[in-house]
Amino acid sequence: MTVSELAERDLITRIRQLLPPAPSWLVVGIGDDAAVVQPERSRLDVLSVDAIVEGVHFDRRFTPPAAIGHRALAVNLSDLAAMGAAPRLALLSLALPPTLPCDDFDGIVQGLVAVATRHRVHVAGGNVTRTSGPLVLDVTVSGTVKRRGYLTRHQARAGDELYVSGTLGAAAAGLECLRASDGVAGTSEGCVQRYLYPDPRVRAGMLLSRNRAATACMDLSDGLADAARQLAEASGIGIVIDAADVPVDPGARAWFERTGADPLTEAIRGGDDYELLFTVKPRHRGRLAAARQHGGVTLTRIGLCTSEREVVLRRTAAGAPADEPLPSGFRHFR
Amino acid sequence: MTVSELAERDLITRIRQLLPPAPSWLVVGIGDDAAVVQPERSRLDVLSVDAIVEGVHFDRRFTPPAAIGHRALAVNLSDLAAMGAAPRLALLSLALPPTLPCDDFDGIVQGLVAVATRHRVHVAGGNVTRTSGPLVLDVTVSGTVKRRGYLTRHQARAGDELYVSGTLGAAAAGLECLRASDGVAGTSEGCVQRYLYPDPRVRAGMLLSRNRAATACMDLSDGLADAARQLAEASGIGIVIDAADVPVDPGARAWFERTGADPLTEAIRGGDDYELLFTVKPRHRGRLAAARQHGGVTLTRIGLCTSEREVVLRRTAAGAPADEPLPSGFRHFR
Repeated sequence: MTVSELAERDLITRIRQLLPPAPSWLVVGIGDDAAVVQPERSRLDVLSVDAIVEGVHFDRRFTPPAAIGHRALAVNLSDLAAMGAAPRLALLSLALPPTLPCDDFDGIVQGLVAVATRHRVHVAGGNVTRTSGPLVLDVTVSGTVKRRGYLTRHQARAGDELYVSGTLGAAAAGLECLRASDGVAGTSEGCVQRYLYPDPRVRAGMLLSRNRAATACMDLSDGLADAARQLAEASGIGIVIDAADVPVDPGARAWFERTGADPLTEAIRGGDDYELLFTVKPRHRGRLAAARQHGGVTLTRIGLCTSEREVVLRRTAAGAPADEPLPSGFRHFR
Repeated sequence: MTVSELAERDLITRIRQLLPPAPSWLVVGIGDDAAVVQPERSRLDVLSVDAIVEGVHFDRRFTPPAAIGHRALAVNLSDLAAMGAAPRLALLSLALPPTLPCDDFDGIVQGLVAVATRHRVHVAGGNVTRTSGPLVLDVTVSGTVKRRGYLTRHQARAGDELYVSGTLGAAAAGLECLRASDGVAGTSEGCVQRYLYPDPRVRAGMLLSRNRAATACMDLSDGLADAARQLAEASGIGIVIDAADVPVDPGARAWFERTGADPLTEAIRGGDDYELLFTVKPRHRGRLAAARQHGGVTLTRIGLCTSEREVVLRRTAAGAPADEPLPSGFRHFR
């Protein structure tokens, strides 16, 4: 059975059945013209929207339905994490090809609801329509943050140290691995899982915001190279990244070595990692303790903000540092 | 030039340039990972998302770019109006075919910003991506309402009177007119404009909420037949609509008479009108005065809520009322 055999309201019923009971702050949930929400006292609202499109952000031939739903919400939670916000609700807008099997529809919703439950996000509403084109999942998320606790991209200053969460390159390796049909390079199951089920750094982002440990923060959806340039431009600074300190994922390193690519370059350029890139004043380094202890992810110092307005990669060979331009980033649109 | 020649950031820059200055409650606007918003004191947040898809909700062959942008926001503001909410902000998520001309992109954004400005809505963020399929515009809106002022669909009770705003059938006639290429039936410019540039009943919705004039309210995006059934089902009531009282748009009546269709049936079934359907306790009829005077649209009593659990159309011929089932509605999904 495909979704074309069901009316919009039947599809919405299927979604509702997969949701946990509504929290008390959700005054009106799914089923009316709009959701009505009790705001959280003395906090700011944080809102973001992100779409994933079949053929652009995922390939249905090798992405299980649950991973599609997972990704649609995870990429949005990553944006909230990058602002230091505590997520609260999601609105789910789906444009479905009529040929989509109902089982895939259910799988997508289940994958999304699993991430929502893990991060205490409630699906409060949405929209379902058909399309003659690829599957499009558009998710809006809303969260809250303390009045002076939100983390932007433009407050990094020369002298701040640059950090990244987790390890880099695994998602890019996982995607290559899924695309490689010849099996020559073997498989890299850990990387595939990292690509299919990115784990948004919600807890780490909230902790970086809570004691104002970070001066600026953004997520790595389009890779470190792209993020470092955007953060530098927004803050009007330069950045030096120490090649030796970039936490290349071990599984990714092994994969890229097998395929003959340079692991460091691939880890810097590769997208879909959904780690956090942030800056910390050296004298506030101690404030990272909470995020380190309870953030659920490693935090690695990878460089320094400068007043030079350039973004460079510093390699140290034979004790002498040599700077080169950071490899170019990965851009979705073109 | 098409959008494929521009990077995502260039497209976002084009959008930003068309926006008015940000209001003071927008703490962080376009350009960061998410928007940060100062909530309004002692009010509830109202959130809705709606997508319009090329080929499903609009046809680019006869819909000017400005009308596409207009529609994308207007259909969402209509949802806020139906909740009685005052709109505040919009998030704009676009999936663009690479062949879309930049002039059309600009026209779409201009059409959307024009509606936003008229209704004091600020575009606070969004997302731009490409798609191999049809153009998809996904808009999220947020507004606010007094704590006990929101209007749902489920509070209508037997004995309440049923009202509709404006006139019906014009959008359906306008769409037929745009589709008719042979010109046999002539044109109906007023109906075409009503189809292309629906006017969401934001002011009327806010006034219906303000003094609790309405017991239930929803908008007519999919036509009166569909809305009446949904409102009846949500409230657990029946509805009798008086055929003689349905405000068929005069231009639509003339159009459907020319094409040989029954104007009343078409006005009841036709979608895209974006009027409000609402219920009022007879003893609170006087509360409609403010919405009548300042809502910018006529309000017409068209029927009554009953305890019968049926939705019927009552025609009175030779002084004797005869009930028939309401014509079937218009559904997007199938």
